[in-house]
Amino acid sequence: MANRTVFFVSDGTGITAETFGNAILAQFEIQPLHIRLPFIDTTEKAWQVVERINQTAEKEGSKPIVFTTLAKDELLEILSSNSQAVLLDMFSTFVKPLEIEFGIKSNHRIGRFSDISKSKAYHDRIEAINFSLAHDDGQKNSDLENSDVILVGVSRSGKTPTSLYLAMQYGLKASNYPLIPEDFDRQQLPTALIPHIKKIFGLSITAERLSEIRHERRPQSKYASLNNCQQEVAAAESMMKLYGIRWLSTTTKSIEEIATTIIQEIQPERLTY
Amino acid sequence: MANRTVFFVSDGTGITAETFGNAILAQFEIQPLHIRLPFIDTTEKAWQVVERINQTAEKEGSKPIVFTTLAKDELLEILSSNSQAVLLDMFSTFVKPLEIEFGIKSNHRIGRFSDISKSKAYHDRIEAINFSLAHDDGQKNSDLENSDVILVGVSRSGKTPTSLYLAMQYGLKASNYPLIPEDFDRQQLPTALIPHIKKIFGLSITAERLSEIRHERRPQSKYASLNNCQQEVAAAESMMKLYGIRWLSTTTKSIEEIATTIIQEIQPERLTY
Repeated sequence: MANRTVFFVSDGTGITAETFGNAILAQFEIQPLHIRLPFIDTTEKAWQVVERINQTAEKEGSKPIVFTTLAKDELLEILSSNSQAVLLDMFSTFVKPLEIEFGIKSNHRIGRFSDISKSKAYHDRIEAINFSLAHDDGQKNSDLENSDVILVGVSRSGKTPTSLYLAMQYGLKASNYPLIPEDFDRQQLPTALIPHIKKIFGLSITAERLSEIRHERRPQSKYASLNNCQQEVAAAESMMKLYGIRWLSTTTKSIEEIATTIIQEIQPERLTY
Repeated sequence: MANRTVFFVSDGTGITAETFGNAILAQFEIQPLHIRLPFIDTTEKAWQVVERINQTAEKEGSKPIVFTTLAKDELLEILSSNSQAVLLDMFSTFVKPLEIEFGIKSNHRIGRFSDISKSKAYHDRIEAINFSLAHDDGQKNSDLENSDVILVGVSRSGKTPTSLYLAMQYGLKASNYPLIPEDFDRQQLPTALIPHIKKIFGLSITAERLSEIRHERRPQSKYASLNNCQQEVAAAESMMKLYGIRWLSTTTKSIEEIATTIIQEIQPERLTY
């Protein structure tokens, strides 16, 4: 299976084609070579793609897999009629049944993100990224009330990547605030957070994993020692329980899974659910 | 078309189902209500989904559209046999033909991101996010040689969101460096950048759009004035030409489109292309 190339062909960025293709390929124990061919929006470019696919087919002695999201029938037709490939097309497979169900024609719009840069949703998303950056790691207390969610947890528990992902993927204004030894000594949340308790979500992690991660940053430090991590994690989890803060362990979760769980729990008003 | 609900049903985060569904729905001039139902991984939960879909169908008097990425046949079967819906299933539609082509069975793995948190690719991605944050806005000159790409451009031309997107989506270490009036006076790039000229990519923007964006931040400032923006943009573009730096205009592009174009141009070694 080593000699099998997968192409992602799109008239836009190819991100949809690749996301779609990767989800399908994850079902197989194979590691094919990926070739992304974005912005295929003319017949000339489509013919170049055909040539490239067919050269690959000849060289490898098997049909390349081609995931496409081409909206134009004309371009798709060039590929499907001329390439020696297993062609998996999202649009013709799923758009046609919906045209029938809706009783309207699709507009064959090219590219998932066309013209999106002018939309309010896009503007809000960029705003959310800027907000989350400004409110990373407890940098800024002002404007905390405009957060959609405030993540808390010990240093290196995954707050920053999760906040940025929530902003970038969902347009949520996600602040994050570290829980530090001073908070544990006082047995209180940072004062700035108290008025916003409903928006708070906690991230925890096993002490073992935390120690590993911290050792990469500051090898052999007290900060990274297993003993210190055990104390901090236990103190942070006690505090979350004390305040009734919902939380999850990030130890074996990706940021995508963490983000999805947070949204289910917090149900931010700005998302339709 | 107002009364038409779309469900995204997944045994994982639902991100793949939603990306896939949104790309399809973008082909129609409709704005249906979205309901995301992640982590549907037991027969009991599948039956709850059926009930919810059928209640919606009855209330709205039309079939809801259901995008699914359920890997387990058993769960998909519950939905397809019992729900009053237009069911669009990615997996059975595309995984089955690949099983035939590959001559192997799919592993019906649940969730695109399962176990990914332990993988090297995931680790590298988190590292890239941290790197990009540390190298945002010219904050840090050390370690610049480890950048996969260095974005330059005037303040508010889109460098920060693009850097973070490159890190989050592609695991690229993306630094960014502002071009400021002092650079234009000297007619030189910041000295720290000179050794890395091959990795540099420029972002520009029309002066009109830049002025709008800056006015949101600092209304009525000289910084935001159209005249100042015109001067900065012209000087930045001259400098890019002087150094032979590739660049694009971000004015009407989304961060996804900007990122895809940069990758095509720079062809970072760490991505297979």
